[in-house]
Amino acid sequence: MEIISGGVCAAKGFKANGIHCGIRKNKTKRDLALIYSEKRANAAAVYTTNLVKGAPLTVTKQHIADGYASAVICNSGNANTCNANGIEIAEQMSDLLANELKISANDVVVASTGVIGQPLSIEPIKNGIPELVSGLADNKSAEAAEGIMTTDTRLKEIAVSFTVGGKVCKIGGIAKGSGMIHPNMATMLVFITTDCAITTEMLQKALSSDIQNTFNMVSVDGDTSTNDMVTVLANGMAGNTEITAEGEDYTEFMKALNTVTVHLCRCIAGDGEGATKLIECSVTGAQSDSIAKTVAKSVICSSLTKAAMFGADANWGRVLCAIGYSGAVVDVNKIDVSFKSQKGEIPVCKNGAGIEFSEEIAKEILLENEIEIKVALNDGEYSSTAWGCDLTYDYVKINGDYRT
Amino acid sequence: MEIISGGVCAAKGFKANGIHCGIRKNKTKRDLALIYSEKRANAAAVYTTNLVKGAPLTVTKQHIADGYASAVICNSGNANTCNANGIEIAEQMSDLLANELKISANDVVVASTGVIGQPLSIEPIKNGIPELVSGLADNKSAEAAEGIMTTDTRLKEIAVSFTVGGKVCKIGGIAKGSGMIHPNMATMLVFITTDCAITTEMLQKALSSDIQNTFNMVSVDGDTSTNDMVTVLANGMAGNTEITAEGEDYTEFMKALNTVTVHLCRCIAGDGEGATKLIECSVTGAQSDSIAKTVAKSVICSSLTKAAMFGADANWGRVLCAIGYSGAVVDVNKIDVSFKSQKGEIPVCKNGAGIEFSEEIAKEILLENEIEIKVALNDGEYSSTAWGCDLTYDYVKINGDYRT
Repeated sequence: MEIISGGVCAAKGFKANGIHCGIRKNKTKRDLALIYSEKRANAAAVYTTNLVKGAPLTVTKQHIADGYASAVICNSGNANTCNANGIEIAEQMSDLLANELKISANDVVVASTGVIGQPLSIEPIKNGIPELVSGLADNKSAEAAEGIMTTDTRLKEIAVSFTVGGKVCKIGGIAKGSGMIHPNMATMLVFITTDCAITTEMLQKALSSDIQNTFNMVSVDGDTSTNDMVTVLANGMAGNTEITAEGEDYTEFMKALNTVTVHLCRCIAGDGEGATKLIECSVTGAQSDSIAKTVAKSVICSSLTKAAMFGADANWGRVLCAIGYSGAVVDVNKIDVSFKSQKGEIPVCKNGAGIEFSEEIAKEILLENEIEIKVALNDGEYSSTAWGCDLTYDYVKINGDYRT
Repeated sequence: MEIISGGVCAAKGFKANGIHCGIRKNKTKRDLALIYSEKRANAAAVYTTNLVKGAPLTVTKQHIADGYASAVICNSGNANTCNANGIEIAEQMSDLLANELKISANDVVVASTGVIGQPLSIEPIKNGIPELVSGLADNKSAEAAEGIMTTDTRLKEIAVSFTVGGKVCKIGGIAKGSGMIHPNMATMLVFITTDCAITTEMLQKALSSDIQNTFNMVSVDGDTSTNDMVTVLANGMAGNTEITAEGEDYTEFMKALNTVTVHLCRCIAGDGEGATKLIECSVTGAQSDSIAKTVAKSVICSSLTKAAMFGADANWGRVLCAIGYSGAVVDVNKIDVSFKSQKGEIPVCKNGAGIEFSEEIAKEILLENEIEIKVALNDGEYSSTAWGCDLTYDYVKINGDYRT
């Protein structure tokens, strides 16, 4: 497996584009994105578990119920959620795009991201679709990635090549997500494309299984979005024998998918609203997978731990506190904690109690921009990793007045 | 029922004191508090559900297992938690105080609050106890309240008088709590005293029942502390016929207790770390008490809603989002939301969708320092209230480098 360039256009037969159509006032920021597969693709998706759901999710669910999709359209700047005419607008987006691409509206994945509860006008989208479609190209993954960004400060894309049954396949993805990130059974917006041939059933199985260890283990602020969605389009153009069951080929596909999703998770967490650091909590020695996950997620969700990381303060008591209230049954007296970055690793807690350590060295380690909080429960064989970020002045600034 | 002065010294037979003994470097801040009942009192308590528990909680639990206590000693500046010798130190605190007061160590409630995981030296406490005891007076509730403060910016105390069986009784309390506030079955540190005669069993019943609607409905930052504790001491010196069962007298006592606890909840939430506003979320029309509570708490815990309140931004979509991911089963299409303060009330969402409103008026309402977020689920008869605060730059500042 090899990391390659090209994002969602890396896989054969996929094109993309992103333009400014006028939903956002800022004319330098693209606000409408398109991904298109020249061959109708098998499609799988997972969605937010928030009871308040964006209208586009309802429409997308209907469209890919048959297991196929050819295109993804997504606007930023407005979530099209909690609006009386939301479904109507999402259907119009699909219809207009389908007409322009000469495909069935039923093969369109539609998504929106931005402010909740403000009516989304169809006009700029309607006016923008011809340019969006005519500009489609196989080197415009970055334009699409930019088109779906909201408070994101960095493009999020990746692609890898891998081999299935002797054929070289490619898989790539783009993501947006910075605030309102606390996925549960689904996640922020992630669009993944592959030319690997795989049935819709196995594609859905791969995605549903992968997100348990990837997107569901990310939190920026504990707020589960109304518009979370991950979709994968697999158009089979790599020419491999279609993956129809578990086995060697499926395992290879899962590995490639996981490389893409872990990369995007780290991108999203590290670019959390206002974040200055990516925080990774790795838990080992748990009695069960569920305990490992619960503990890892509780640590990266703790506002106090996040603020301490912002201040590069080795306040490990807050890590222990977050483990204690996580709801997971653990033996507190067996827990070891250390902080790690590329500057080194420093143990700070052994058997649930503090040990002497150099505050100076700890500070140096915590001043880096990628921090690992290592928690050893010393109580079993399961492990898990969760990704988050620090809590900063800028998170407050960004969210104190997001709508203006 | 009438609100009176005196705090924990309002009830007959109670004295208090607070001094600086040297745990904190800042010599102007009291760091050791004492409450003493001249008559051995019936005692009830609730504790944190965090698996990581402060050593003082373990000792206090043992001491009041027999239903009695005479004194409460509490230091601030150090939580005496996650220390290898924590139990030993907590027991020494009890023993030293008991010797000086000439009571049994088994009648001492001991508590600590502050940084986790730093050894607590007994020396300053040992040296301070004689002064602490000799200075006991029936007008020093405020000194005790100051002695238990950590990042609190305001004293938290209240007292009320009420009548049980023709006898005037008094009940008062002090509290500390500003960060790491997300009580669950118990809460931050709250010490309540009353001269009402009530059995230990009924006292515990009253407390356990009351906190479900008061302290357990408060959150500042989602972090459940390791040292949460509420205790009530009832010395019976008001001379009323002892309350031994439910009935009119018990109801009167519950009302008085609730007045004290709701006041302290509002104090704690409004003085949350870095907070500029008290946020109250009142939920009506729920199908069950549990749904009402879950929804109210989810709203006041949402970082995005809290940041919006800091910015006086009527971003009601975040309120709906927090309801949607709360886990409570609600009909989104029936939900109404309005914002209220002493400047007026403004409806912003009807039947789950946005309605037109004046942003200018909304801003004026949200610039006040006590905001009510009113959520009508229109789906049943149950209601609930939760208390929290806004998320501000200062929360990040305070917690970015708490230990130095």
